[in-house]
Amino acid sequence: MVVLRLLKDGERIDDLQIKGLKIIQDTQGFCFGIDAVLLSSFAKVKTDENVIDLGTGTGIIPLLLSAKTKAKIIYGIDIQEEVVQMANRSIILNNLGEKIKIINQDLKKAWKTLGAGKWDVVVSNPPYMINNSGLINKENKKAISRHEINCTMKDLIECANKLLKVGGRIYLVHRPERLSDIFFYMREYKLEPKTLRFVHPNWKKAANIILIEGIRNAKPGLKMLPSLYVYDEEGKYTQEINRIYGRED
Amino acid sequence: MVVLRLLKDGERIDDLQIKGLKIIQDTQGFCFGIDAVLLSSFAKVKTDENVIDLGTGTGIIPLLLSAKTKAKIIYGIDIQEEVVQMANRSIILNNLGEKIKIINQDLKKAWKTLGAGKWDVVVSNPPYMINNSGLINKENKKAISRHEINCTMKDLIECANKLLKVGGRIYLVHRPERLSDIFFYMREYKLEPKTLRFVHPNWKKAANIILIEGIRNAKPGLKMLPSLYVYDEEGKYTQEINRIYGRED
Repeated sequence: MVVLRLLKDGERIDDLQIKGLKIIQDTQGFCFGIDAVLLSSFAKVKTDENVIDLGTGTGIIPLLLSAKTKAKIIYGIDIQEEVVQMANRSIILNNLGEKIKIINQDLKKAWKTLGAGKWDVVVSNPPYMINNSGLINKENKKAISRHEINCTMKDLIECANKLLKVGGRIYLVHRPERLSDIFFYMREYKLEPKTLRFVHPNWKKAANIILIEGIRNAKPGLKMLPSLYVYDEEGKYTQEINRIYGRED
Repeated sequence: MVVLRLLKDGERIDDLQIKGLKIIQDTQGFCFGIDAVLLSSFAKVKTDENVIDLGTGTGIIPLLLSAKTKAKIIYGIDIQEEVVQMANRSIILNNLGEKIKIINQDLKKAWKTLGAGKWDVVVSNPPYMINNSGLINKENKKAISRHEINCTMKDLIECANKLLKVGGRIYLVHRPERLSDIFFYMREYKLEPKTLRFVHPNWKKAANIILIEGIRNAKPGLKMLPSLYVYDEEGKYTQEINRIYGRED
């Protein structure tokens, strides 16, 4: 009955449908969505590379990357103590304590703890909304995951710049509205945008998700990938989405 | 026989298929393509607004904008004397001398001649390629239209910043490879990217053309438009492309 003791009130265990992985989520909190899944599939992690997930939340991205890649070690950092505890219980549940480490820290200080200029890959599914509303409850876990309360885009990219080695890669999932912000700060912090992919609900609609790869100290020059469409004309998931979700193998 | 006297050796007159407009082009030089047509359709020009086309070449964009919009006056600037002469002969050919003015000038000095901070709209279809090859013939008209020989992206955006009034708009057509450069300089020169549209050969292929709207001193926040596809699944022009080319009315 290990599983039961790992769960607190209001939490549930979800099956990630890949290599038997499971994740603990708070039904009242921020549950992972398609963005984390898309990012984990978009990020290129080579054998034995060391990875950091900035703002890891419940640890969904480290869990998925542990299944999809041959990373040596994957760190997840989050400023919220409660979600870090939840993520750590998911790691125990999956018996991945050797490969995934979740630490409770403000990412602005991450390079001091984890070492500067030595990481191969940084991934992040950062808060989408700029913190410009006084209505946000700053104690609220969902709000912290969605709004730039503790960390701005600039903070995040500056942090990635400090952690990554020259030639190291950053992978981000975000909203198209922020593309110019992201590109501006990436250029400023020498993480040159190299690959861009748009995700559209279907081919007739505007993109609503972006996937970006940047490389530290690389030359300018952006490669566009063909767009990813979530639904086909009949409203069903496209083949590629099914593949990303591991529904076809 | 006015038409014949307007033409030099190696030049031809092409019908723009809109409001009877014609353009003179040099068959050995840089002839306008889909980019100019897309940009002229993407740019929003309101009644009585004043417009400048930076690097106007043969004047294709001022000609198309004069037909598609109710602009008060449209200036075209180009550093190449020969193409400016050709553009001016096209203006005479179309009897548009009251509305379109083409001047032979380095755009880096345009604000001195045309006045700073007073223009409503700047449009540009700039050279696509960064000038990093020693193989380019700097005397060659085609090369000047295609490569950043006389003007870099930074120069162009700095120039637009000087010309535009606060709230004035810039419209650019370019290649996705340069998107991060463009966004970086737009942000640096306070021309905030507000609208982005990708043009794809068809919906299965990656975008190969970008259309960008920026607004001087606007707040950050980018709107993505649905992608524009040039060909349908049967390899025919899509309805929207036909509409842009004025083939359906």
